[in-house]
Amino acid sequence: MRDEGKNMRLGFIGLGVMGRPMALNLMKHGHEMAVYARRAASAEPLVSAGARLCGSPREVAENAEVIFTMVTSSSDVENVALGEDGIIKGARAGCVLVDMETIAPAVARRVAASLAERGIDMLDAPVSGGPAGAQQATLSIMAGGKAAVFERVKPLLECLGKTIVHMGESGAGQTTKACNQLALLVCAQGAAEALALARASGIDPAKVREVLMAGVAASRVLDLFGARMVSRDFAAGIETRLYHKDLDIVLELAHGLGQAVPAGAVVMQHINAMIGRGDGTSDLSALIKIIEAMSMPDDARRNDAA
Amino acid sequence: MRDEGKNMRLGFIGLGVMGRPMALNLMKHGHEMAVYARRAASAEPLVSAGARLCGSPREVAENAEVIFTMVTSSSDVENVALGEDGIIKGARAGCVLVDMETIAPAVARRVAASLAERGIDMLDAPVSGGPAGAQQATLSIMAGGKAAVFERVKPLLECLGKTIVHMGESGAGQTTKACNQLALLVCAQGAAEALALARASGIDPAKVREVLMAGVAASRVLDLFGARMVSRDFAAGIETRLYHKDLDIVLELAHGLGQAVPAGAVVMQHINAMIGRGDGTSDLSALIKIIEAMSMPDDARRNDAA
Repeated sequence: MRDEGKNMRLGFIGLGVMGRPMALNLMKHGHEMAVYARRAASAEPLVSAGARLCGSPREVAENAEVIFTMVTSSSDVENVALGEDGIIKGARAGCVLVDMETIAPAVARRVAASLAERGIDMLDAPVSGGPAGAQQATLSIMAGGKAAVFERVKPLLECLGKTIVHMGESGAGQTTKACNQLALLVCAQGAAEALALARASGIDPAKVREVLMAGVAASRVLDLFGARMVSRDFAAGIETRLYHKDLDIVLELAHGLGQAVPAGAVVMQHINAMIGRGDGTSDLSALIKIIEAMSMPDDARRNDAA
Repeated sequence: MRDEGKNMRLGFIGLGVMGRPMALNLMKHGHEMAVYARRAASAEPLVSAGARLCGSPREVAENAEVIFTMVTSSSDVENVALGEDGIIKGARAGCVLVDMETIAPAVARRVAASLAERGIDMLDAPVSGGPAGAQQATLSIMAGGKAAVFERVKPLLECLGKTIVHMGESGAGQTTKACNQLALLVCAQGAAEALALARASGIDPAKVREVLMAGVAASRVLDLFGARMVSRDFAAGIETRLYHKDLDIVLELAHGLGQAVPAGAVVMQHINAMIGRGDGTSDLSALIKIIEAMSMPDDARRNDAA
């Protein structure tokens, strides 16, 4: 790898609502970029900005010193990293894979171990901050892996986020992200129950949110998702099915450790119900509809749905 | 009642960790003050500052145009307002009672109705912000009652808090406070589960809290109570038994409305367990001990308790 000050040859795989602005932010700092996306259309804005469009993760790896992945699930990461046309087939020893999607800590450790056999380093470096944080390069980044690799890649992570913390060895970033999602989702459940209780009491939920934001109950969740619960704007920022995936990871991690997370389990049941109601692609703010619906006569539910 | 600009004759009943600094803040604005506390020692700092010490709520009411109460429970408010030596026995028509403790909305409405028969107005005006907010006069105040009474009393509330919102008719302030406590307590449960999961995973909870505070999981609860969960500083700011009382009010309100609050119910079970473990007078941050203890072998629990 060249000095951090110089332009580097980067790769980015997974150009969705998070990955696309992140890849663009890396390019703004003058780095060369090779990209791959399952749907080639997703790569358009990157190609317009000068990125090289590749036909496979392997081809990205052949053209990059540091490769970022922002795909969806644990199995996607395994395929992109270790599959037939995967990164492992194209990357040279000394390359670094920075995986930024939320996946299971155990999978992150397994993929890192397989890559290490070929001399390829890996950081698990999931993020918090949502699409707005990705666009504004204000993400919070929690990284796991070797400290020396973290230090080498840190200048690139600084193109993407503001708070960048090395949490420990391989998997520690994903474990931290699991803790983040647990705190976030339980907080969202609390906001949904509080605003549903306000509405059931005949008190204006908008006013309740305003006054709660001035006290100890204030949270970014109540600010962001609470605003959408109040305005009944359930169009997706991040689709709830992705939080379902994340909470699955939390519950599996807790299961493996023998650690009870009772409120996390409660939220999972509500997200299951959201998916049952056809709200799996809605914003997480639609959680309030479940809390309301379960306490509502069927007639009122029909009116509410209309 | 005189013009808002002029000094007024005020009363304050209940001079605990919240009431004492609040009464002092009112006196700083030049108002005369009559006080009553069950334990006369609590009134010392007020008397030193020039307040008149009274022998009963009735005597406070005889000496005040606006009377503030910051006692503990619904039954305390009923006794202080309507009891044998209560405010109702000493207050003149046109007086205002501003009740700032967290009590059941139904009790607030009932007391207000009894006082109204004697021409005494009442606002329910509970607060959020804790002892620090009381000291710094930065409380968030959520008020219920007649709009005209709210406007008359608002300049006094501005001596105590920064965000002061009229939520609606009698009881609306307490209903809003119930929503506040529900959101706060569920958020605290999420923070406790997330930090317990971090600890079980062998990741430094202090680092986890730091990085979570930079992302969407950030909350004042994770900031304030999370810091104490990390430092294992469980000495009380506000004793958990008071949150138990508040959550009782939330669950009773939800019950009366037929509104499910599933995560609120889960938190109540954990607070019950805290009381069982002798942590009823600890800070709410001790919630993390319950999450940890339930997943810990008895031997480890003994070591943890030591």
